[in-house]
Amino acid sequence: MQDNIRISYPSSEKVYLAGTLFPDLKVAMRRVSQKPTVTKDKEGNKHFKENAPVYIYDTSGPYSDPKADIDLKRGLPALRTPWILERGGVELLSEPTSDYCRQRLADHALDHLRFGERAPIRRALPGKLVTQMALAKAGIITREMEYVAIRENMDCAARGIETHITPEFVRSEVAAGRAVIPANINHPEAEPMIIGRNFLVKINTNIGNSATTSTIDEEVEKAVWSCKWGGDTLMDLSTGANIHETREWIVRNCPVPVGTVPMYQAMEKVKGKAEDLTWELFRDTLIEQCEQGVDYFTIHCGIRLKNVPLSQGRMTGMVSRGGSIISEWCMKHQRESFLYEHFDDICDICAQYDTALSLGDGLRPGSIYDANDAAQFAELDTMGELVQRAWAKNVQAFIEGPGHVPMHKIRENMERQIEKCHGAPFYTLGPLVTDIAPGYDHITSAIGAAQIGWLGTAMLCYVTPKEHLALPNRDDVRAGVVTYKLAAHAADLAKGHPGAQVRDDALSKARYEFRWKDQFNLSLDPELAEKYYREAHYENGDFCTMCGPNFCAMRISHRLAHCDDDKQPE
Amino acid sequence: MQDNIRISYPSSEKVYLAGTLFPDLKVAMRRVSQKPTVTKDKEGNKHFKENAPVYIYDTSGPYSDPKADIDLKRGLPALRTPWILERGGVELLSEPTSDYCRQRLADHALDHLRFGERAPIRRALPGKLVTQMALAKAGIITREMEYVAIRENMDCAARGIETHITPEFVRSEVAAGRAVIPANINHPEAEPMIIGRNFLVKINTNIGNSATTSTIDEEVEKAVWSCKWGGDTLMDLSTGANIHETREWIVRNCPVPVGTVPMYQAMEKVKGKAEDLTWELFRDTLIEQCEQGVDYFTIHCGIRLKNVPLSQGRMTGMVSRGGSIISEWCMKHQRESFLYEHFDDICDICAQYDTALSLGDGLRPGSIYDANDAAQFAELDTMGELVQRAWAKNVQAFIEGPGHVPMHKIRENMERQIEKCHGAPFYTLGPLVTDIAPGYDHITSAIGAAQIGWLGTAMLCYVTPKEHLALPNRDDVRAGVVTYKLAAHAADLAKGHPGAQVRDDALSKARYEFRWKDQFNLSLDPELAEKYYREAHYENGDFCTMCGPNFCAMRISHRLAHCDDDKQPE
Repeated sequence: MQDNIRISYPSSEKVYLAGTLFPDLKVAMRRVSQKPTVTKDKEGNKHFKENAPVYIYDTSGPYSDPKADIDLKRGLPALRTPWILERGGVELLSEPTSDYCRQRLADHALDHLRFGERAPIRRALPGKLVTQMALAKAGIITREMEYVAIRENMDCAARGIETHITPEFVRSEVAAGRAVIPANINHPEAEPMIIGRNFLVKINTNIGNSATTSTIDEEVEKAVWSCKWGGDTLMDLSTGANIHETREWIVRNCPVPVGTVPMYQAMEKVKGKAEDLTWELFRDTLIEQCEQGVDYFTIHCGIRLKNVPLSQGRMTGMVSRGGSIISEWCMKHQRESFLYEHFDDICDICAQYDTALSLGDGLRPGSIYDANDAAQFAELDTMGELVQRAWAKNVQAFIEGPGHVPMHKIRENMERQIEKCHGAPFYTLGPLVTDIAPGYDHITSAIGAAQIGWLGTAMLCYVTPKEHLALPNRDDVRAGVVTYKLAAHAADLAKGHPGAQVRDDALSKARYEFRWKDQFNLSLDPELAEKYYREAHYENGDFCTMCGPNFCAMRISHRLAHCDDDKQPE
Repeated sequence: MQDNIRISYPSSEKVYLAGTLFPDLKVAMRRVSQKPTVTKDKEGNKHFKENAPVYIYDTSGPYSDPKADIDLKRGLPALRTPWILERGGVELLSEPTSDYCRQRLADHALDHLRFGERAPIRRALPGKLVTQMALAKAGIITREMEYVAIRENMDCAARGIETHITPEFVRSEVAAGRAVIPANINHPEAEPMIIGRNFLVKINTNIGNSATTSTIDEEVEKAVWSCKWGGDTLMDLSTGANIHETREWIVRNCPVPVGTVPMYQAMEKVKGKAEDLTWELFRDTLIEQCEQGVDYFTIHCGIRLKNVPLSQGRMTGMVSRGGSIISEWCMKHQRESFLYEHFDDICDICAQYDTALSLGDGLRPGSIYDANDAAQFAELDTMGELVQRAWAKNVQAFIEGPGHVPMHKIRENMERQIEKCHGAPFYTLGPLVTDIAPGYDHITSAIGAAQIGWLGTAMLCYVTPKEHLALPNRDDVRAGVVTYKLAAHAADLAKGHPGAQVRDDALSKARYEFRWKDQFNLSLDPELAEKYYREAHYENGDFCTMCGPNFCAMRISHRLAHCDDDKQPE
């Protein structure tokens, strides 16, 4: 694993931009260089015109920096630790707080599975407010905030493009709850990023083992693989064996924020019997994961006892695993869920570590028939109530959304969410715009994702071609991530994100000038684009199998522009 | 080729619905049968409840009818010939009218390439109006009109679903120019279908050889392959050798309407020198193809001399092959194009055979930067003028559209097209909503296609993963067709097409009841869905690798609904 874990992109250089408020900041970015445009004059002399390099938002972390010292057994460098210590208000714990974590540490049968050296565990001191939201409300611009401001702009100012995204703007959005910077103080390895509708649309990818599939090695590889293709955050949805140890390996080696659904691990602890779940066990799980560095938790706290029966008339019942588990608990005990009843306690725990909350949509529709029904919207109302309680405790939060929704019902989802949830970021799974294409659900969902992203959804949870059919493999993850990157980018273009179109323009210019290599290098998947081209391409570089020599519209266009030789064979 | 050309779909039966106005009509459809829903009562007795079969719009023609006699050398049965003869007004020609066709027939070196027996060639008698539009305007409901009305409804009345689509509605839409039934009297093998915004959204697929690639056999196979996956019309875009003979094989064996870009063949005839093109040569090509049975022509007659320079400031110039060819002709000769000047003559030819016109968008944008620019919209204005001239001659017509358009500029395309082109059907390529994903452009374009289909585009031209990179192979064609079927279906759902949701509902119900086989059978690509599932699936049928035994939301949902055994392992 170790040897091939590094990431490289063609004609790309890892660069770091400095901050202004914090000049020592090193904001990672990918700079893609291009070949010059070549023209010939009538005497046959060649003229060269430079094409500026393109700055690309980069989620690959140190893996794509050839100077970085990568050792999965030691984990990534703790980029943010000095920042966290400088701000103060935190203590170093001598041992983990959770009972479960201590049991696992004491079990030497697990030694061979364990991540190398134990990472330091920190927690807010009593009465100290350490979350990005608390700092933002106090008027403090953190290093994380300037980092994301620079990151979002992709050096557009150097191209003369104005931007609304300043460090102060970031602060104000976080303070208002309209944006989240998932940044657990125990995951200092992650590079800061922001989720909010006035920023680039982000994508989440899921990994995780289930009952008998895959090993820790494979999961870490999948995590890095997902970062390579552009995953902005990573959810570890493991439900099988050794969840605790797997997570430690992932978090320590993950340059993007990590999310989980703590209920999955809680269910493993009660051997799959939902009715045996208790608040105490769940609470211990939260603390265990906060202290490992999980950046956000999906918690299905919007399920109310009274709303569970609303799903009975549905075509596909409940399709959220966490939601169905807690619903079963509610029905068996005939009482309100402990997630709802202990919501303030959950927030108190999260605030100590700056773990953000992703309010899970347990009643999301699993079919076109069920879209926008009473069950779904009742839960959304509850989430609107809870998000304000999270904010009151300075916990960052966002709201999860559907699911399966036909196109004409997408807008209502977004508008209601903004209204009922007071502007908190929306984080949707697709939505899938039809049910009839299993095997192609990365596409059915990308259609919905692009639209809802344009309308204001801040983060899109990816879907792979295997959705509804099987767990994804490496190829499926790549297909899912790239598909969601293109959907998110389409939304960025439609929203007019500053500088988003720079990449499209550069790629299209390269295409028109037959700079094939530049076209590939600027694309979301340079390897695949080049592979398709090479498999079919003629030797001659200025036409291709698509049109043959006489039918290339672009060549004719060049002739029409009176610059016959304005092309550059590879 | 012969042996494996038949098409089969799992658990599907080819059925034929009769007409009311024309009781002898046999409207082909696919009926997918389902397994019953099985429940157990407390005593363990099983109860079975039928699930109604689902009627699916079927583009596969006789290839999926086991009773049909398929012989590619003889071609498909001439379904519509008796209808055409019954209406009268046509003559049988003793030999082809076009000089080129006669030359080819006289050349015995081509005998080995030729389609078996020559098909009869018919043409309207002088003064007789034989197009579907002429008949519609005269208040006549043709057999084709009742056929498409039944076909569009997918037996929804039997499910208690009301429909606006009656034979009279079809007639009125065709008469108004809002819909087109491409139905060349010399392609009687094709099953009638309709293109219009008040009907199901259709998709077109492209095949065709270029300079040195592929053989006639391969092109016919690709045609049938495209029909298998759901292509509603097929464009033969061949630019290489033996275009005439290749087309004959395709048309004779194609159960869906066939379109071409006659300019490609005209260019072959002048050996790729645009300036040598003449109206006489082009006219002969039109007649040649009308008499072979081409159902619609893409002609870039909207290019005006004065508008060619509008493309000069673009990022990607002209990306339409036909458009760039005629533009070069205009610039070399410094005169108005013969396509524009002879537009009425073109219509006179088309009216004699009921070949429809697809007014080609030579100035469509080839990049996000160029979307919705002056060049594009100037051409649209010209097309609006021409479509009325086509209608005055009773020629059915639709309008081609972009291309590359970011999401926020899609609506303007549709609204302008409806306004400027007086409600004529719109036929778009995608549009692609970003330029940065070569290798995934079936997806970037499906995002735009679904949206513009919802807004009113009547037909979507498919894009394969190889777009911009290479010619598609079989797998690419399948991926492109299925992707466009799902985009078109998403648009049908959003438009509320009568009965469109029946299939989604049936598939989702099957999914919820763990009737895996029914889920696959009802999907757009049953083979792929089942393959993904089988590769990863446990032996036990009531959970899968996605969730493992304890985490299946649907199983828990069933428990919540107090029907523990409401599932049915395969």
